[in-house]
Amino acid sequence: MTNKGNIQIIGAGLCGALLALRLGQRGYNVEVFEKRPDLRKVAVDAGRSINLAFSNRGIKAMKLVGIQDKVEPLCIPMYGRMLHDEEGKTMLAPYSGRAHEYINSISRNALNALLLDEAEALDNVTFHFNHKCTSVDFEKGISRFYKYKDETEFTKKADVIFGTDGAGSVLRKSYFLAKKFLFSFSQDYLTHGYKELSILPTKKGDYKTYKNALHIWGRDAFMLIALPNLDGSFTVTLFLSYDEGVYNFNNLTTKARVLEFFSTYFKDALELMPNLVDEFFENPTSPLGTVKCSPWHYKGKTLLMGDAAHAIVPFYGQGMNASFEDVVAFDKVLDAGYGNWEDVFTAFEKERKKDTDAIADLAIDNFHEMKGHVNKAIFREKRNLEMAFEKQFPNEYASKYALVTFNEDIGYREAMLRGRAQDKAILNLLADKKINLNDDLRNILKKVKEETETILEEDSVAKKMHH
Amino acid sequence: MTNKGNIQIIGAGLCGALLALRLGQRGYNVEVFEKRPDLRKVAVDAGRSINLAFSNRGIKAMKLVGIQDKVEPLCIPMYGRMLHDEEGKTMLAPYSGRAHEYINSISRNALNALLLDEAEALDNVTFHFNHKCTSVDFEKGISRFYKYKDETEFTKKADVIFGTDGAGSVLRKSYFLAKKFLFSFSQDYLTHGYKELSILPTKKGDYKTYKNALHIWGRDAFMLIALPNLDGSFTVTLFLSYDEGVYNFNNLTTKARVLEFFSTYFKDALELMPNLVDEFFENPTSPLGTVKCSPWHYKGKTLLMGDAAHAIVPFYGQGMNASFEDVVAFDKVLDAGYGNWEDVFTAFEKERKKDTDAIADLAIDNFHEMKGHVNKAIFREKRNLEMAFEKQFPNEYASKYALVTFNEDIGYREAMLRGRAQDKAILNLLADKKINLNDDLRNILKKVKEETETILEEDSVAKKMHH
Repeated sequence: MTNKGNIQIIGAGLCGALLALRLGQRGYNVEVFEKRPDLRKVAVDAGRSINLAFSNRGIKAMKLVGIQDKVEPLCIPMYGRMLHDEEGKTMLAPYSGRAHEYINSISRNALNALLLDEAEALDNVTFHFNHKCTSVDFEKGISRFYKYKDETEFTKKADVIFGTDGAGSVLRKSYFLAKKFLFSFSQDYLTHGYKELSILPTKKGDYKTYKNALHIWGRDAFMLIALPNLDGSFTVTLFLSYDEGVYNFNNLTTKARVLEFFSTYFKDALELMPNLVDEFFENPTSPLGTVKCSPWHYKGKTLLMGDAAHAIVPFYGQGMNASFEDVVAFDKVLDAGYGNWEDVFTAFEKERKKDTDAIADLAIDNFHEMKGHVNKAIFREKRNLEMAFEKQFPNEYASKYALVTFNEDIGYREAMLRGRAQDKAILNLLADKKINLNDDLRNILKKVKEETETILEEDSVAKKMHH
Repeated sequence: MTNKGNIQIIGAGLCGALLALRLGQRGYNVEVFEKRPDLRKVAVDAGRSINLAFSNRGIKAMKLVGIQDKVEPLCIPMYGRMLHDEEGKTMLAPYSGRAHEYINSISRNALNALLLDEAEALDNVTFHFNHKCTSVDFEKGISRFYKYKDETEFTKKADVIFGTDGAGSVLRKSYFLAKKFLFSFSQDYLTHGYKELSILPTKKGDYKTYKNALHIWGRDAFMLIALPNLDGSFTVTLFLSYDEGVYNFNNLTTKARVLEFFSTYFKDALELMPNLVDEFFENPTSPLGTVKCSPWHYKGKTLLMGDAAHAIVPFYGQGMNASFEDVVAFDKVLDAGYGNWEDVFTAFEKERKKDTDAIADLAIDNFHEMKGHVNKAIFREKRNLEMAFEKQFPNEYASKYALVTFNEDIGYREAMLRGRAQDKAILNLLADKKINLNDDLRNILKKVKEETETILEEDSVAKKMHH
């Protein structure tokens, strides 16, 4: 890999900008093409969420490129879920029993701008905005671009092309349509869509509700969440079915009906959102989808990364973190000293795909958990028990949420397998009344650990069957 | 549903022909378009398997349309798997402990021809061969066809259009490309492909090896199978990786190497196939893929059925049976008396998709089981135990294979859940030495049943978590 030839990156979003920065730091000549305008100069409505959950895996990536000190001021810590019931009563459910474990709310655009600044400061990294990739000839390593400015098209060859062009990736579409190799691909939509709304700051610029939490109004069939912004506002997201249930996106067509829906289910939120009805009809409703595919690479010519390779639903707050972790994993493969790009890409996908498949599935699980389970007695008992474990035995127990979110040195797949087995163990021990919450906590932990190991072993025998 | 308007069916393969027959019997006016020539008049190389496994679910469909007496003479019973080891030693592993439970080998073309004859005999059913559908405007209910004969294109409107046009369905492709609604879709390829070969009859026209079994040469990383034909030949299929392992499709490029491969791993089969090397290079290598999608229907205008809706890998011998069962399930929904096609299609998909998803997953499981597990000690112990259960307690136990294959009144999904739980129960009881094969068989069955129920219950609690 001594050849520091031309690298082309399609897409300068969070993943593409970080990848450009890291490859630039490693000495590669990098040219990045982005279809949108430069978000540092023009207000860009990305059509994507305004703020995002940012946690350990993302932080690890920022440390890799040496900018975590610049990222920190952009972060608003969220220590737990603030659960709002229908009467407007609230309860803070911490994310962990360990005080130093929390997630952050961060502005997508501010973080993206920082990454662009850092990458652009390198001599060997160049960005071209307003350049839309329209197709990639991955056999020849040639991309076709449309320049919005003068409405012309041109092609650009490179030694290696990275597609970090998001869930609607043009590189991935080129793989799919060309039928030059067996390309496994899936796109799975939830029956729910989402719409972004907002809670504006008070006139004085203060937060209208508790700042340091991720607010959730879970109502089983649908839910509302809110994440804080630095300016005192919250970005609010409604997750709702397109066509099922009494209230859904397809039938919330009048102001009166929207108000009726919110005043029935989200009374306390509605009081903070005098702007609700206008926003509801101004803002788009967007779908929620999961994309998986394989292979990510074509020989040693092209590679998909980030959402282009594995788009996930937002319910674990891991979308950006997973894309950042791609760059960390890729960097590690580069360190391994393979002799050519094909071996690098093959090793990267082999190492990484099992983990991005896992976080995709975990994110779907969490959709159901957030909507409903957080409110149910047995799940609350389980959660309380886990909090007690994490507080009293901080080095001996980590919940599934903690494994996924705060244990950046454990892969998503391992976190999923262990986390699900723990969940199953606790729920079954509770359901079968095999643990008594009045017992000694150390004893309960012992039983949970034993039951978890049994489940992992039994699954492993059965897995040999299903391979 | 009193409107017996125009129904269009795209594809006159096994599913399309059966659907045409059934809808014709119900009094609908049906027009069927097929891209291939009429296989009753021209030798059609369908590029698909020559013979197929035909079992209870398929038989139920034949009974529905009243032609099982005509199908029976086409069937060759296969009572079990004839396992061939590397030394050429064989062992017959029966499919069931109940003597009346077996599967059949049947010619795809002979069965398809019969279905075409039966459907065409109805006044209200018409077939057009050599008409290739190129796209479907599913909003307007208009299909576009290319006529090979005079190289012209035309469009054809219908009240309702069924896409029974196989794994490469044009109707499904139209859903995908149009982006008019959220279409979840997946295509998943195995790393293995397949190639068809043959064992010809003796000069006298006799079978060269045991007729009434499905022959399997399982070698962990790859396998060979053979199914009998009425003319004394066997159709042989090699399942092998494209690029992994010492021998693979990509590197079996010379006659010497192919012979080396077969003489190393399939010595006894090679002796029956003097024609092997020529066939190997004459016959195509084809991929093995699973297709799932949703929704199958667009409002009340169009519906996917059979492989077009759910293509599966061949390892459970259920591909044709599942497509035939689609017609049985659809017929049942028609009986329910819904007032319009949209409600019929919605009810059909709701009832049916869970089962076709399950058989797709089961077929992947069985790939691994057939290649390898059939040879491993613990799996053989399990299988022997299940055979003993089925023989001694024929009304109290059915293995996963029996639930899937011989219990046509249990849906695939239920068969999968119960069958997997049973497998897990037996394997874990054996591994943990909690059952002793010298115990009273009635006692062992009791333990297996209890453990199965525990697993099903525990999974059900955990499932509420993952919903």
